[in-house]
Amino acid sequence: MDELELIARLTRDLPRNASVRVGAGDDCAVIDGGAPDRWLLLKTDAVVEGVHFTAETPPEKIGHKALARCLSDVAAMGGEPGSALVTLGLPPGFDPQRIEGIYTGLNTLARRHGVAIVGGETTTNPGALLVSIALTGSVERNRCVLRSGAQVGDVLFVSGELGGSIEGRHLDFEPRLVEARWLTEHFAVHAMIDLSDGLASDLRHVLNASGVGAELRGPAIPISRTARLRAKAGGSARPPLLAALADGEDFELLFAVSSRDAVPLLDAWKARFPGLPLSCIGRVLLERGLRLRDHLGVRTLEGHGYVHFAQPG
Amino acid sequence: MDELELIARLTRDLPRNASVRVGAGDDCAVIDGGAPDRWLLLKTDAVVEGVHFTAETPPEKIGHKALARCLSDVAAMGGEPGSALVTLGLPPGFDPQRIEGIYTGLNTLARRHGVAIVGGETTTNPGALLVSIALTGSVERNRCVLRSGAQVGDVLFVSGELGGSIEGRHLDFEPRLVEARWLTEHFAVHAMIDLSDGLASDLRHVLNASGVGAELRGPAIPISRTARLRAKAGGSARPPLLAALADGEDFELLFAVSSRDAVPLLDAWKARFPGLPLSCIGRVLLERGLRLRDHLGVRTLEGHGYVHFAQPG
Repeated sequence: MDELELIARLTRDLPRNASVRVGAGDDCAVIDGGAPDRWLLLKTDAVVEGVHFTAETPPEKIGHKALARCLSDVAAMGGEPGSALVTLGLPPGFDPQRIEGIYTGLNTLARRHGVAIVGGETTTNPGALLVSIALTGSVERNRCVLRSGAQVGDVLFVSGELGGSIEGRHLDFEPRLVEARWLTEHFAVHAMIDLSDGLASDLRHVLNASGVGAELRGPAIPISRTARLRAKAGGSARPPLLAALADGEDFELLFAVSSRDAVPLLDAWKARFPGLPLSCIGRVLLERGLRLRDHLGVRTLEGHGYVHFAQPG
Repeated sequence: MDELELIARLTRDLPRNASVRVGAGDDCAVIDGGAPDRWLLLKTDAVVEGVHFTAETPPEKIGHKALARCLSDVAAMGGEPGSALVTLGLPPGFDPQRIEGIYTGLNTLARRHGVAIVGGETTTNPGALLVSIALTGSVERNRCVLRSGAQVGDVLFVSGELGGSIEGRHLDFEPRLVEARWLTEHFAVHAMIDLSDGLASDLRHVLNASGVGAELRGPAIPISRTARLRAKAGGSARPPLLAALADGEDFELLFAVSSRDAVPLLDAWKARFPGLPLSCIGRVLLERGLRLRDHLGVRTLEGHGYVHFAQPG
């Protein structure tokens, strides 16, 4: 049994109650917390030394990343963040100054987005430094965006440029809270997700949740300069398009809107966020599965989105 | 710098926002989540193999303990639990069946108290299995009980019997949610805390938060049978009274009420919870500090409540 199978088994029959609007399986859980016009959003996420950062990572960036990952999920619901609790797992002989640095990074990002840090706890964690964030948020009931709302005929957009985040962006990205709020204020966003696992994997989450398929236009996928440079340098880096499809931790927004909104949205975005690219990368289709169209034709993306792509279709 | 000093530094100047009613430092954070008559409660707590349980602990009990600890904190606010998120830190080569067992324990306790499990995540944690729970709850605004409300002249009550929890109770205790709700329905509870660090330490939290002192009556402190048996067996076990004062993880309720409520409360409790002892263990005084009165006189409890007690006063 691998981790995905285990998670599928664990989440199959979880306890629910009357307050749950969306349980496990979206970017955040959505709860009726009793506020008349808003839902409560809940998210938790952990970063661990040796997995999400290294012993050399500046502590401020560890704190930044830990909170930014959760904020990115609140953004993907169209929400506004509220309060955070911080769990620190400390290995024996930890350096207190490093922990203070982590909090500096956390607090700076929290203040920028109006997030309160309202507690948490420290515990011994023998093997590695661990920082887990539990975050609340809220969203107007009529502006909450799920993964499951993509409709046949929708167009797919992605913000920013993808791939090569491992070179540094994964540690200091700014969660797309402002952009997501602007989107849901001005357009009917049918489905949205933040890119953490990689474009192909995360798009698959949206498609599966929505019961649809999609075709991506290869040349439209925005590839980061870093991904291109890494590919040129060789080594273990993926080819640029593959990096944009499969590298994780881009933390950009992927969303679906009606095709009639495509042009007005692109124009308005350019005026509002001139420094941040927005790319129309494909469309939602009735036929299930994820396909990539380029000058060679149409190929099916399988597995995590790149296994079969690397072999001629 | 030890862990307590570090926590004091980290929590000194945390970001806040307008929704925060009580931040770090009580059993739960208290948030105005927009519900007209209720506060939102937030709590997070982690258990780690080798610290809070062992490789031999039945997995159902690990899951039970992880959630029960958070539920106990919601009880201490007078609240009702809502939704939980589960973070699993998995060491390489973990046993999937053990994880399923942990969820069985979690889910069983959650269902009994109407708690929804609404997501979470799994991450690699190189050194040890870790289970962290983030829990929401809510409480009527006029029934929320803080640590800081103890008043001079109040009497102090504790539920159950204390000490020796390490023998097994720490893994299968039932959080005192029903009892706490009953208390706040029928009486004006001025301050409350759940006993996790040990009676002396946790009472000190209440006294410091309330700006008062207290005197305990030694013979009134309820000592568990387990603590007495452990002391008889010798070894590293503490003397019984010391165990009741200083052993952690009792997860009983400690609370302060007006002295005029003492007798009616004891009578009503006996009728409602005949199987669960309730002990009037002392009173709140103007003079700061924590003192213990027994047949030898009055001694001051210092440090974590037992360091100086072990030496003749």
